[in-house]
Amino acid sequence: MKPNFSLRLRLFNLNCWGIPYLSKHRADRMKRLGDFLNMESFDLALLEEVWSEQDFQYLRQKLSPTYPAAHYFRSGVIGSGLCIFSKHPIQEFTQHVYTLNGYPYMIHHGDWFCGKAVGLLVLRLGGLELNAYVTHLHAEYSRQKDIYLTHRVAQAWELAQFIHHTSKKADVVLLCGDLNLHPKDLGCRLLKEWTGLHDAYLETRDFKGSEEGCTMVPENCYVNQRELEPFPFGIRIDYVLYKAVSGFYISCKTLRTTTGRDPHSGTPLSDHEALMATLCVRHSPPQHIPSPTHGPAERSPLISILKEAWTELDLGVAQARWWASFAGYVIGLGLLLLALLCALAAGGGVREVAILLWTPSVGLLLGAGAVYLFHMQEAKGLSRARAELQHVLGRAREAQDLGPESQPALPLGQQEGDGTEEQ
Amino acid sequence: MKPNFSLRLRLFNLNCWGIPYLSKHRADRMKRLGDFLNMESFDLALLEEVWSEQDFQYLRQKLSPTYPAAHYFRSGVIGSGLCIFSKHPIQEFTQHVYTLNGYPYMIHHGDWFCGKAVGLLVLRLGGLELNAYVTHLHAEYSRQKDIYLTHRVAQAWELAQFIHHTSKKADVVLLCGDLNLHPKDLGCRLLKEWTGLHDAYLETRDFKGSEEGCTMVPENCYVNQRELEPFPFGIRIDYVLYKAVSGFYISCKTLRTTTGRDPHSGTPLSDHEALMATLCVRHSPPQHIPSPTHGPAERSPLISILKEAWTELDLGVAQARWWASFAGYVIGLGLLLLALLCALAAGGGVREVAILLWTPSVGLLLGAGAVYLFHMQEAKGLSRARAELQHVLGRAREAQDLGPESQPALPLGQQEGDGTEEQ
Repeated sequence: MKPNFSLRLRLFNLNCWGIPYLSKHRADRMKRLGDFLNMESFDLALLEEVWSEQDFQYLRQKLSPTYPAAHYFRSGVIGSGLCIFSKHPIQEFTQHVYTLNGYPYMIHHGDWFCGKAVGLLVLRLGGLELNAYVTHLHAEYSRQKDIYLTHRVAQAWELAQFIHHTSKKADVVLLCGDLNLHPKDLGCRLLKEWTGLHDAYLETRDFKGSEEGCTMVPENCYVNQRELEPFPFGIRIDYVLYKAVSGFYISCKTLRTTTGRDPHSGTPLSDHEALMATLCVRHSPPQHIPSPTHGPAERSPLISILKEAWTELDLGVAQARWWASFAGYVIGLGLLLLALLCALAAGGGVREVAILLWTPSVGLLLGAGAVYLFHMQEAKGLSRARAELQHVLGRAREAQDLGPESQPALPLGQQEGDGTEEQ
Repeated sequence: MKPNFSLRLRLFNLNCWGIPYLSKHRADRMKRLGDFLNMESFDLALLEEVWSEQDFQYLRQKLSPTYPAAHYFRSGVIGSGLCIFSKHPIQEFTQHVYTLNGYPYMIHHGDWFCGKAVGLLVLRLGGLELNAYVTHLHAEYSRQKDIYLTHRVAQAWELAQFIHHTSKKADVVLLCGDLNLHPKDLGCRLLKEWTGLHDAYLETRDFKGSEEGCTMVPENCYVNQRELEPFPFGIRIDYVLYKAVSGFYISCKTLRTTTGRDPHSGTPLSDHEALMATLCVRHSPPQHIPSPTHGPAERSPLISILKEAWTELDLGVAQARWWASFAGYVIGLGLLLLALLCALAAGGGVREVAILLWTPSVGLLLGAGAVYLFHMQEAKGLSRARAELQHVLGRAREAQDLGPESQPALPLGQQEGDGTEEQ
């Protein structure tokens, strides 16, 4: 690779709001999205909420001349909704489905059925290995009483761990997607601090688009205006994050968002705003390599975020266990009721009533059994994330105690990210 | 690192058969296992089927002086059953739960509830980065009519992909566990060919133990003798697999198995035999580095195995879709029946019968709904693995057509494994 090597990457990210039968003007929006992507000819287009595989196939056909490579990440009952279109050949791809993703009995929210996941693409561009991740985390239906907070924190941790463990040899790491997390939310801080990814909106000097980089804005006619009432400019929950490792330097030259309208006609492409980033990768001159040793002061944010996440997951484990125990008591009660009904039916007297009540009792028993199994599984999933966090926290504390001279390898939100591991 | 660097690794692997209330002499066997591990002082002990976390805690306490680091991988409803004990500090750990793992309605087999997974440990030994994986794939309950074959092939592929994507920077990769696959089984060949892992039993020149390296033998009093009838020496389904990358060379100096008896007293430690391997890692002298280019002839096994696996998964997808469609018809029928019953109940006449039949109809509907959701999810999971396989197959074929000069990166069961990717 030449020493004056430089690579320009143009990215597009959009949560497409493509729910069959429910999302307004879906076919028309998909058509216009295809036209726009063809016209702009990005290097990579990463899409979320393409729930219908027919929509993906339609886009694939439409985009094939400009984006010869494409992939749809399948998971859950409905599908992950994630897909990508690439101008460059895809070397490898795989995916990771999040262990926890809401509750099956919250049918009206539907996240559990979607199999939310993170998709990974490996590309090789000009001798450079690029890992591009696309994801969509659990939705936030109420900010005041967010019953999915713990699951979203666990997902953010799994996402961070997946990126951490699969990108160790990558030169450039990109993450695009709808995180359903505001920039200061615990999950977002945890993800950025543990992976060392940088936020394009915060890093770029050339931003044009919606106020404060928001990706759900009140100007968008598809957005539920009541939900955005507490946020006059809207909310920023879709991201382009990146980092370069092993002697490369990456920067965000420009970042654009749509502003509640289609870039060309008057109606928006989705209820979310699209993100369009131009990134530049080049060899890292010495002045761009930050010091590989970090003093205790720099470690504190990671430690405090890990502690916060640990506490959140710990509460989640306790709650999941409470529900499992509650379901266990209901199972016991159901079994007792069933035995009583059998005795009554055998003894005569209120036989009809006993027979009538028998089936609902069995239903109660089966329902409670399902709830028990689900929350047992939830407790295991949360315990797993908590144990991983605890381990990382222990090592971060050890590193803080030892001081900058003899620290074990920990990625810490620095430009070189995982590069610190090469000791 | 010194040029004459050499590292000796002593490993222990055992499927512990630790099912609470069901496995015979569990407490006694756990006690003796702890004594044995303490006495032998391995570098790493990797255990499967430790279903009870109490057993893990018991072992942790007992082994803590010899193995200061330990971890239990939690997943599913019951737990993955996987745990490890290490003489050396654990740098990092994470896990991946397999997307597909049997059927929830096969309660008597129970695999679905276990959340079968692969656990990953990252260790640093003498400047060397070691990725150790432990896993347990879906059991084989009938070799003649194996309804879980497709799931096991999908698991083997997910395992291979997880290792492939998480070990790119590792110097040494180890995989131990109960694969529930015979050496010539499709899943085993796929795993070895795609990851480049070597089988300790086939590689070592110093093997002592059961005939043909079997890990379930008829001499073991806990083994169901009828199941082993077609295999006079037993079966080999537990493995120690390894590879070295980036300029290191690894070999298996010795491999031992137990032979249906406890190493010291007369009763075995489990229904499986333990594997004990001594591996030696050193800098790879030039003569040990195989040629980094492989002609079309060497690629053929990978291509034919990928094709075979693709066919198996394709059949699985078709079958899953058939079941989903069947459940869809039953749902339709159930809805019709329910409407009819409501009409009958409203119209009088056979009102009692209608009310009596109403609840079973709802039960039928809910049951069919659950079956539908499960098999839809199964079809998505299998389609995902099939798409990944198809992509790899396409690239392997391209490589074959291009010849050895301009091949893209593909790990191919060579000693340097993923090292071929550095082009």
